[in-house]
Amino acid sequence: MRKENSTNFINNVTLENFCNAHKVLSKISGRWKLSILFALSEKETNYSDFKVVLPDITDRILSKQLKELKIDGLIGNRKSKLESIYFLTDKGEEIMAVLRMFKKL
Amino acid sequence: MRKENSTNFINNVTLENFCNAHKVLSKISGRWKLSILFALSEKETNYSDFKVVLPDITDRILSKQLKELKIDGLIGNRKSKLESIYFLTDKGEEIMAVLRMFKKL
Repeated sequence: MRKENSTNFINNVTLENFCNAHKVLSKISGRWKLSILFALSEKETNYSDFKVVLPDITDRILSKQLKELKIDGLIGNRKSKLESIYFLTDKGEEIMAVLRMFKKL
Repeated sequence: MRKENSTNFINNVTLENFCNAHKVLSKISGRWKLSILFALSEKETNYSDFKVVLPDITDRILSKQLKELKIDGLIGNRKSKLESIYFLTDKGEEIMAVLRMFKKL
């Protein structure tokens, strides 16, 4: 994550809100993470289903983005004999609840 | 703004929420825009005050980011004899209200 800029906000609440927003946005930035999170907000998804929901994504990018989102604690996965099912964690759900509040610009 | 990925979400509401979030995030992405928006959420600010709040920012970058945020309708400015005062527009305030909801990861 890029170094946060040094800022001299007047109020500590502003700084805290800024840091929270900056951290979340840096963890969901990138061309595909938002799409993956919104896909998982609809339903738990296995690897091959992602390719149906996101037809343009390559295997290399999908695995990398899933791995990063998992490391950051926004998604989890359950392994069964045949497949690995991905889902949003509580933290992921929390972020989605906020992301859904953005209105049409 | 980068081409949105083609997605096959099940539900149109998901697609709409995704598009809104994607557009907002692309307009506030970049190292300095978030800092500028949070600075303006504290108080209306003139150009030189930005350099106090954001000591690391260069003139070139500050003018570019302010111009882009203005074109995107998130900030406005009022010119008086001596200075130009920047402020959040209603749209900017709306986005800030959402950004403040991100909790500590």
